[in-house]
Amino acid sequence: MTKPFYYEDYTIGAKRTTLGRTITETDIVLHAGQTGDFYPHHMDQEWCKTQPFKQRMAHGTLIFSVGVGMTAGDINPEAMSYGYDKLRFIHPVFIGDTLHVNVTIQEKRAHPKRPQQGIVVEHVEMVNQEEQVVLACDHLLLVNKTPVSEEK
Amino acid sequence: MTKPFYYEDYTIGAKRTTLGRTITETDIVLHAGQTGDFYPHHMDQEWCKTQPFKQRMAHGTLIFSVGVGMTAGDINPEAMSYGYDKLRFIHPVFIGDTLHVNVTIQEKRAHPKRPQQGIVVEHVEMVNQEEQVVLACDHLLLVNKTPVSEEK
Amino acid sequence: MTKPFYYEDYTIGAKRTTLGRTITETDIVLHAGQTGDFYPHHMDQEWCKTQPFKQRMAHGTLIFSVGVGMTAGDINPEAMSYGYDKLRFIHPVFIGDTLHVNVTIQEKRAHPKRPQQGIVVEHVEMVNQEEQVVLACDHLLLVNKTPVSEEK
Amino acid sequence: MTKPFYYEDYTIGAKRTTLGRTITETDIVLHAGQTGDFYPHHMDQEWCKTQPFKQRMAHGTLIFSVGVGMTAGDINPEAMSYGYDKLRFIHPVFIGDTLHVNVTIQEKRAHPKRPQQGIVVEHVEMVNQEEQVVLACDHLLLVNKTPVSEEK
Amino acid sequence: MTKPFYYEDYTIGAKRTTLGRTITETDIVLHAGQTGDFYPHHMDQEWCKTQPFKQRMAHGTLIFSVGVGMTAGDINPEAMSYGYDKLRFIHPVFIGDTLHVNVTIQEKRAHPKRPQQGIVVEHVEMVNQEEQVVLACDHLLLVNKTPVSEEK
Amino acid sequence: MTKPFYYEDYTIGAKRTTLGRTITETDIVLHAGQTGDFYPHHMDQEWCKTQPFKQRMAHGTLIFSVGVGMTAGDINPEAMSYGYDKLRFIHPVFIGDTLHVNVTIQEKRAHPKRPQQGIVVEHVEMVNQEEQVVLACDHLLLVNKTPVSEEK
Repeated sequence: MTKPFYYEDYTIGAKRTTLGRTITETDIVLHAGQTGDFYPHHMDQEWCKTQPFKQRMAHGTLIFSVGVGMTAGDINPEAMSYGYDKLRFIHPVFIGDTLHVNVTIQEKRAHPKRPQQGIVVEHVEMVNQEEQVVLACDHLLLVNKTPVSEEK
Repeated sequence: MTKPFYYEDYTIGAKRTTLGRTITETDIVLHAGQTGDFYPHHMDQEWCKTQPFKQRMAHGTLIFSVGVGMTAGDINPEAMSYGYDKLRFIHPVFIGDTLHVNVTIQEKRAHPKRPQQGIVVEHVEMVNQEEQVVLACDHLLLVNKTPVSEEK
Repeated sequence: MTKPFYYEDYTIGAKRTTLGRTITETDIVLHAGQTGDFYPHHMDQEWCKTQPFKQRMAHGTLIFSVGVGMTAGDINPEAMSYGYDKLRFIHPVFIGDTLHVNVTIQEKRAHPKRPQQGIVVEHVEMVNQEEQVVLACDHLLLVNKTPVSEEK
Repeated sequence: MTKPFYYEDYTIGAKRTTLGRTITETDIVLHAGQTGDFYPHHMDQEWCKTQPFKQRMAHGTLIFSVGVGMTAGDINPEAMSYGYDKLRFIHPVFIGDTLHVNVTIQEKRAHPKRPQQGIVVEHVEMVNQEEQVVLACDHLLLVNKTPVSEEK
Repeated sequence: MTKPFYYEDYTIGAKRTTLGRTITETDIVLHAGQTGDFYPHHMDQEWCKTQPFKQRMAHGTLIFSVGVGMTAGDINPEAMSYGYDKLRFIHPVFIGDTLHVNVTIQEKRAHPKRPQQGIVVEHVEMVNQEEQVVLACDHLLLVNKTPVSEEK
Repeated sequence: MTKPFYYEDYTIGAKRTTLGRTITETDIVLHAGQTGDFYPHHMDQEWCKTQPFKQRMAHGTLIFSVGVGMTAGDINPEAMSYGYDKLRFIHPVFIGDTLHVNVTIQEKRAHPKRPQQGIVVEHVEMVNQEEQVVLACDHLLLVNKTPVSEEK
């Protein structure tokens, strides 16, 4: 469950796909409870009927949190998540939608100050059961380089 | 609770601050349960004692979700959240830390294609009880411009 | 978010209305879990089919708790809730019902012993999507009077 | 688990006492999540330190809901809860307090319009580990009278 | 709520039946969250449609935990649960199934080493709304024998 | 995440160990809520102080459910869990204990009626931070045999 994986071990273009998960009414109610966001977009079925989308939508932070959780697999002690760029909510997620996540290694770049580490950018896309992308972001990992032996 | 607020109504440099909230062990257990992320960094007190930070840390997505929830106030029907840039996890959050959020209107810019809407960038900082910034991001809002009367 | 509001500031007959919220099966399951009340009226769909109402009902304490929570808005540091009178469960609430709360300032009266405080009675009604009152109660607030300047 | 108990079967002055239950931080976090009440009195440990009570307090509706749940025992198909009078929050409840409930049959009275039913008033007191009453209320039950045989 | 019940008080063949409880989508989502088991059999509606059972199934440990909880009634201070034998998942449980539990005293036997205690075996069956047994197990209780008076 | 693994692929004596997880007060409160078991052994800190173990204990079904969840790794489409034997609660689990699970392939045996499947018995032990076994059981898996090619 713990597998060291160094900067050099990441290959640009490598892809992985997670299992799927159905977003339920329960998930929305629990997320409102965790965050305190009880906006009618998520919690008021009658109001939603008067809106263009006609039904309750999942919170953006719910979908993002579930997506990040779904990509958690083996623990890489050589990498550290330090942020996300270009997080976009592209398509609403409704109760009963089933999502999975596609992750692609998109870029590797030097760290401006730390020669022993590099930055790996994973492009993350969450996709629903109709193959629509609902959320996209770039996940930035700070990854150790393979230690160089100092012996001759 | 619903207050229309147009693109022109946002002032660069305007600030608001939320109430505070203590992050509890319960929040971490519930977030693991919502996301499926049971990494030992969050769930295994004994393993954490062997690590530099010595104790369990909150999930990044928990802190982000709680922070976004805390900024939810009046509903602005003229604005729509469409994403976040430069989301960074700056300092770990531990059980018992109390966080609040500072929001500053940082930038207003034209939308490349939609003349009736503009983009407002809110800079979001979550701060702990020792005034350390634990998370920062830029929240992008797509906001309607004030309707122009066509009458003379 | 914190707004001082003194006894003198309350006007009899003033009304406010909350946003709406749909009561879900999740709410009922969570409330059973919080209270330990697993009576078949709330938890056993088959038994409920044999009863006059034909379906599971929300717990009275769930509806009351949600209603009180929905009325929580700005914090008034000059007021303290000290109780409720005439709490009545008037109409059952079923899964999928959407409720909002109407609050009316009904009465102001002197406190029998504390000249610096008065009692404000808010009449609270929870209403479903068919405009039926499902719950009513009187909420008693102990409110500070506007401080009198002691300067001449 | 289902025991018919008629109006005539209630004896004024009869008492029962429930098991105890410790109120936890988890209960407060879950109740905030169920109700949407994230007031700092319940959720912000740092702010509470600046207040007279120095620590987070349980929501009144949490204590009431737990207390009502604790009194749920056998189901009496001849009785129906229709409300509460004089619900008072007498003493704050803090994390770690252990509560039990004392119920006393206080009054029996005729129903103004229904000769086949009567009203039974249970006086409910919730008590903490130091024998302080933290909450009191009168629970009103509408109870069927023993059916009268029509045979001669 | 506490009733002493000694080894001698158990009668082979005695039966009791619990109230019923409907298994909801919420229960499954909460159990996934408590256990970390997010297998698609429980969480991915689309994948389940491709499987013989066509829909999401409850976790075995959910059904077992709920069943054990349903049989908890009066507390017997003279008995201690020390395990289960032959726990079998006989029929899948789907969202909306309503279960109850039948318990039969099946066997009493001497404890190999403790003359003051005996072992009581309860046979537990969980049954759905179509009278299908979904789970069965043998619950082993270590029960004190009636104390023998030492007086003459 | 899905790896076919046939009856022949299991080796007696093979072992695996899971990550660890700390059992929290939150887990106990949530499990009481899921199962309806609010016995004072789990929920009443004051009563527990009067008992030999002096503190609240986790429910047996909580520990079992968490343990089973912790062993869930890759999905083996060739195996099906059909039950557990000799489930024993060996040592109480208290709030703050950190558990992991050791699994050993203990036995392989023919299925009495199905020649294409065999039974694999995994011995499961849950261990706390002091290396005490808190729970043990035998997990029975029904596993497909490697398909035999019918071609000559």
